[in-house]
Amino acid sequence: MTHFADRLAHNIDRIGSPVCVGLDPVYDKLPGELKCGTTGGGPVAAIARFCEGVLDACRAHAAVVKPQSACFERYGPEGLACLQHVCRRARELGYIVVLDAKRGDIGVTAEHYAALAFDAMDADAVTVSPYLGPDTIEPFLNHQPADASRGRGVFVLVRTSNPGSDAVQSLALADGRTVAEMIADHVAVLGGSRRGQRGLTSVGAVVGATKPQDAAALRARMPDTIFLIPGYGAQGGTADDVRRMVRPAATPGARGVLVTASRSVIYAFTPEGGDWRGEVSAAAAKMAREIGQVCN
Amino acid sequence: MTHFADRLAHNIDRIGSPVCVGLDPVYDKLPGELKCGTTGGGPVAAIARFCEGVLDACRAHAAVVKPQSACFERYGPEGLACLQHVCRRARELGYIVVLDAKRGDIGVTAEHYAALAFDAMDADAVTVSPYLGPDTIEPFLNHQPADASRGRGVFVLVRTSNPGSDAVQSLALADGRTVAEMIADHVAVLGGSRRGQRGLTSVGAVVGATKPQDAAALRARMPDTIFLIPGYGAQGGTADDVRRMVRPAATPGARGVLVTASRSVIYAFTPEGGDWRGEVSAAAAKMAREIGQVCN
Repeated sequence: MTHFADRLAHNIDRIGSPVCVGLDPVYDKLPGELKCGTTGGGPVAAIARFCEGVLDACRAHAAVVKPQSACFERYGPEGLACLQHVCRRARELGYIVVLDAKRGDIGVTAEHYAALAFDAMDADAVTVSPYLGPDTIEPFLNHQPADASRGRGVFVLVRTSNPGSDAVQSLALADGRTVAEMIADHVAVLGGSRRGQRGLTSVGAVVGATKPQDAAALRARMPDTIFLIPGYGAQGGTADDVRRMVRPAATPGARGVLVTASRSVIYAFTPEGGDWRGEVSAAAAKMAREIGQVCN
Repeated sequence: MTHFADRLAHNIDRIGSPVCVGLDPVYDKLPGELKCGTTGGGPVAAIARFCEGVLDACRAHAAVVKPQSACFERYGPEGLACLQHVCRRARELGYIVVLDAKRGDIGVTAEHYAALAFDAMDADAVTVSPYLGPDTIEPFLNHQPADASRGRGVFVLVRTSNPGSDAVQSLALADGRTVAEMIADHVAVLGGSRRGQRGLTSVGAVVGATKPQDAAALRARMPDTIFLIPGYGAQGGTADDVRRMVRPAATPGARGVLVTASRSVIYAFTPEGGDWRGEVSAAAAKMAREIGQVCN
């Protein structure tokens, strides 16, 4: 079995930039030519075509894609079939697939969610929520997927990019750590025995680009953890913010981050007419250049 | 629109006991007569028949059912179609349906999860995870469901029943509150403007029966919040534990709790042969009596 962190690093090396494209398809925002009135079929069929187009357009510029499970689940069984299709197509095109599902439940239930992520969707990694404690993350790490050749990973929510996260994650504990730093310590412990050949672990952390002021302290607590960094682009995070998050870390350097953007890439087209695939591809290429300069 | 808390109270009054049966179907545990080798069809078909049987068996003894989304999602689109079927059947039989999905994501994404819970599954309430902050819970509260006649609710994870939850939720903040108490304060604020006619709010809290020592302090912070109490039965919580959780609360008294059990009810049958529906029904009746004595 190839370790998740090594597979990820290999893919990032191949592309030359640690870029992840978030697939958050929302029907109302799709290019006009894909809308139901134009092509027939329902909204889920339109979303499938849109995702296929984005996957093709970003292939040379992104090592990873991150489908947002909620955007598919809202359509029920048909949406989940579409998600399954998009995950499969992405893997066929060479992407690493991070299922953004933010699951978290007691251990016996977490095993079922691991089966969802790693068998039903056959994703390479999944985002998980830590509020129930570290024992609820371990089932994801111990799951034996049906396809055992590809090692799997998780990204634990540590410091999220949304404005209201401060009301929980920034609070100080009696021992001096913030809540986010306490979760970071759990992540480091869980990852300690799960290192790949390059020293990075299969237990990653979500650390928003909108919270760069916290990144150095979090990196110090998680030196060998891959940071999945959302918030770049539409949420306001900039290349400079990402630079501040990469630079404090002597190790593991540029291979310890994965910068993800969704809306600023997948909706980077002129609303009416035009070559939407080309515009999405150009936006992904621009992001890959900017992030590559910061990280390499 | 009828307020969620009033609808729930009405259902509890009708049954006479605040009992919720958790639907956590696991194929290997099903009665032999439902297994594939016996009846044909795949595991999801067997799970559907099992859930239908449990819903019929518990009808007179439980006001609420709580399908565990993970147990269905692990089967992909087919599993989600089964969940949809089980939710619909439960509502037809008069149950209030709490979808146990523990979702939590940034606001724009939380709206999609609200659509999953309240439109695709048409559930009456959904469990949500608070780590991303209160702004990520509000989209569930503000969602306008397609069927607007039934007010909807959420149950926020505050103090969960699993052993490892102490490693996050019991920690002391610098201001003297525990992490769970801090989340409880967010729940009270979110619920403040969302009260039904009986004074209870549509923003409930999950507080495990395995943590009764914390219940009084949490109740003091959330006087008008419905406590969804898991952990009774298979996880070790007893009627005495539930009594300790109900009694400290002068208000709202017995209508402010909803005690949920899954494995100790739905798997309460002799493994080989016998009347499994009757045994499940008897287990639900016993629980309804025990909880009714404690709460009324």
